[in-house]
Amino acid sequence: MSQLELLKSFIGQEFRVSPSPLMRWLNPTIISAKKGNLVFQYQVRPEWLNPIGNLHGGITAAIIDDILGATMFSLDEPAFFTTINNVIDYFSVAKPDQIIIAETFVIKHGKQFINAECNIWNNERTRLIAKGKSNFFKTEANNHNMSQKHIELSGNENLKQNYQNGIFN
Amino acid sequence: MSQLELLKSFIGQEFRVSPSPLMRWLNPTIISAKKGNLVFQYQVRPEWLNPIGNLHGGITAAIIDDILGATMFSLDEPAFFTTINNVIDYFSVAKPDQIIIAETFVIKHGKQFINAECNIWNNERTRLIAKGKSNFFKTEANNHNMSQKHIELSGNENLKQNYQNGIFN
Amino acid sequence: MSQLELLKSFIGQEFRVSPSPLMRWLNPTIISAKKGNLVFQYQVRPEWLNPIGNLHGGITAAIIDDILGATMFSLDEPAFFTTINNVIDYFSVAKPDQIIIAETFVIKHGKQFINAECNIWNNERTRLIAKGKSNFFKTEANNHNMSQKHIELSGNENLKQNYQNGIFN
Amino acid sequence: MSQLELLKSFIGQEFRVSPSPLMRWLNPTIISAKKGNLVFQYQVRPEWLNPIGNLHGGITAAIIDDILGATMFSLDEPAFFTTINNVIDYFSVAKPDQIIIAETFVIKHGKQFINAECNIWNNERTRLIAKGKSNFFKTEANNHNMSQKHIELSGNENLKQNYQNGIFN
Repeated sequence: MSQLELLKSFIGQEFRVSPSPLMRWLNPTIISAKKGNLVFQYQVRPEWLNPIGNLHGGITAAIIDDILGATMFSLDEPAFFTTINNVIDYFSVAKPDQIIIAETFVIKHGKQFINAECNIWNNERTRLIAKGKSNFFKTEANNHNMSQKHIELSGNENLKQNYQNGIFN
Repeated sequence: MSQLELLKSFIGQEFRVSPSPLMRWLNPTIISAKKGNLVFQYQVRPEWLNPIGNLHGGITAAIIDDILGATMFSLDEPAFFTTINNVIDYFSVAKPDQIIIAETFVIKHGKQFINAECNIWNNERTRLIAKGKSNFFKTEANNHNMSQKHIELSGNENLKQNYQNGIFN
Repeated sequence: MSQLELLKSFIGQEFRVSPSPLMRWLNPTIISAKKGNLVFQYQVRPEWLNPIGNLHGGITAAIIDDILGATMFSLDEPAFFTTINNVIDYFSVAKPDQIIIAETFVIKHGKQFINAECNIWNNERTRLIAKGKSNFFKTEANNHNMSQKHIELSGNENLKQNYQNGIFN
Repeated sequence: MSQLELLKSFIGQEFRVSPSPLMRWLNPTIISAKKGNLVFQYQVRPEWLNPIGNLHGGITAAIIDDILGATMFSLDEPAFFTTINNVIDYFSVAKPDQIIIAETFVIKHGKQFINAECNIWNNERTRLIAKGKSNFFKTEANNHNMSQKHIELSGNENLKQNYQNGIFN
């Protein structure tokens, strides 16, 4: 099963087999999954709030970063994607227990770099809550299976080393 | 006790009385607290990881957003601070259970807007893991007491309404 | 004539009456003009180049900042718009003498803040060269006439003072 | 003469031999030049203004992008540096004919990626006008001599091709 097929097989369900521990904690329900275009749904939880009692911008940022990572996986490329940066603009609020929607898009798909964006909406998609964008750097991998809980990096210890130490090192 | 004095009184301890539910979940230890310059320490937890087993950039973003908010509180101004944006560059990785340090600085302190930055370091501060910056918009408040678990917005229902609905609405 | 009508009256022509001296130097031709959505065309000039002989990212940034400002004017609101930030991702190159296209969109239109984006394309709009986004802060004005070469700020010297000194001061 | 030595040899003078045509147009005077840390001085010109008669944010962006590029040259590495992004926060204004100062810093110097920042100050460095930051991607070069007016990319036509077409292509 490809990574995209795995995502599709969880449409309508919580993505409890995500290889991202943070995603399992954020616990989204997959609404739709296409190559480079994911829609996930989340429910605002008590520990996600800011001092005023609304959704904390830090969780919004975490959701954006995490689903953008999953969007790279949906491309089914034999590569690792390192996030270079994340730029988030905050527009509106979400309340406790509110359902919010994250939708992603690939803006530019290069050989080495990918740029992608994420909109955070209220459940009816009538109000934009936040928008983020990231640049990703691709490193080719020999074996990269998202459906396994941990990612195997066989055959290229150098790559594994580089990836695990970060692109700036 | 002023907000800054409250932060100072927790130096060397976990800041369990933070008005930010997300901060209580992130559970930092306060290393130092000055007006506009905070140093917090965090330990990387299992649910904070990315698919490769390192600290997830989404948690790095959440930490940066949250401590920058606390930095606004440390200014002891009778105002609310709304985060306009957050821009994060990722440089290096952190491992499970690793201790990381967040330090904040105010770059520009205007009457209506404040710009502040946050560095994320390894515990020895020899390796920069990430750096973020945000712009904040100030709204004056009549009564704003950080030491109470929920923030009272007495005397100005209009302000409360505006703040709770977001600056873009 | 409203500001938007002024822009429309120059469709197919160089916008030589722009109130922005930088825009007059960049010398775009207006392709289309709608409220919050402008399309301008530019030709890459020798002094716009980088050391490798392509369009310099600094000029791309200048074009994005300038046309986003014009997009605020196109809204025909009796307000001044101060640019809070500008975030540009660079994707591809443009060559000497090449025609490039800038198109803008309003992403979020709030009472006090506006977020807008700009795409830079090759002339055929088959290749995205760069993308930028900005947050703007609105200050109400009593009299603000774009068709005059300099902007009159009658009736509110305080506002004029604030605007001319920058929002962070 | 190394690239850094070339920059040093123009301290106190306009850098009229810059390989960047845009820099020759912006016409800075070099105040100081160290590896990864440049200080340039500029004078605000009539075509650099915005509709209100102050320094246009687009020129601020151009200056930041351009001097950050020169900062990469000052590293004397046999590499080309492609700008991935540029993030600028605007804090205050500059007036016609005003002298402004740009100073750059390398924040993270990795093998493949470099992150650098630029502050724009008034001449006395008492007021911060803007601040920007960029990520750069390095591509190794065989022969790269800044002191020649055009850059020779001998021995590696592939590299030249890649560089000239942009990293996202």
